[in-house]
Amino acid sequence: MIVLGIDPGTASTGYGVVKGDGLGLVSLVECGVIRTRPRDPLAARLDEIYEGVTELLARHRPDALSVEDVFYAKNVRTTVVLGHARGVVLLAGQRSGVEIHEIPPAEIKKAVVGTGAATKEQVQFMLTRLLRLKSAPQPSDAADGVAAALACLMAMRTPRAPQRPRVGA
Amino acid sequence: MIVLGIDPGTASTGYGVVKGDGLGLVSLVECGVIRTRPRDPLAARLDEIYEGVTELLARHRPDALSVEDVFYAKNVRTTVVLGHARGVVLLAGQRSGVEIHEIPPAEIKKAVVGTGAATKEQVQFMLTRLLRLKSAPQPSDAADGVAAALACLMAMRTPRAPQRPRVGA
Repeated sequence: MIVLGIDPGTASTGYGVVKGDGLGLVSLVECGVIRTRPRDPLAARLDEIYEGVTELLARHRPDALSVEDVFYAKNVRTTVVLGHARGVVLLAGQRSGVEIHEIPPAEIKKAVVGTGAATKEQVQFMLTRLLRLKSAPQPSDAADGVAAALACLMAMRTPRAPQRPRVGA
Repeated sequence: MIVLGIDPGTASTGYGVVKGDGLGLVSLVECGVIRTRPRDPLAARLDEIYEGVTELLARHRPDALSVEDVFYAKNVRTTVVLGHARGVVLLAGQRSGVEIHEIPPAEIKKAVVGTGAATKEQVQFMLTRLLRLKSAPQPSDAADGVAAALACLMAMRTPRAPQRPRVGA
């Protein structure tokens, strides 16, 4: 089971590819960032993000694409531009036919650390531990992509608790 | 000179194709909306918008793509989802190689009506007059697409005032 996780951003889109062996062991396949030039027009930068994600999907053929679901940012302009980047990431997933999961930041933190209020440092510490790395994935956008992938992988792996018949029913 | 104008939206993306004959006469070639199903996942809806705009660009081969530049909406959620739709519209333009113009709503109104504070009704009245139509383009999202196209066409057509040498220089 392979998951590609994406943390969308116009300037820097972080990604992480994580693999599960089905026996509870998870490992990091690749991580990094797709950077765009601030001076390029927005449409050209969106094309670079789209091309980058499409290339990752073609190369790793993941079972799922996990995209961080951000609906708030400090200012409206940042939020709407982030929406543009997220739009082309979702489009790349849709056009490649991969299963898409949109996961809110708090759920990603909860899956990786155990609490939705975890700090960036706690997430990076747990990533390092769970994936048996020497240090946290760098830069931090790449770590966010890895966290999105890992949260999705853990959610897909978790078997639903079997429905137990109610006592007395 | 042909311009495709787009008013992006997740549920309904309005478009208008406008043609200028170079002698000051403008005419409407086509207008309409790309509608998506509210129950479909966001990624599937974005793909429909992307496909729709790509098809319009291929069929009309416009000289320019004019996209309404909206950075504010009543709530953050609406704004960011609108960003997703705008992102895939810009991507479709970039990938088709057409010249892209992003025009703020106030500039569109100013170009069509003469004031950036014009009402929707004033814009529709002027569209009807300038394009010699029997009634305003319907639905209103389509009219917004036509207005974006017309504003761009008028801006491209306006020759810059020749620099007159200063008296006494």
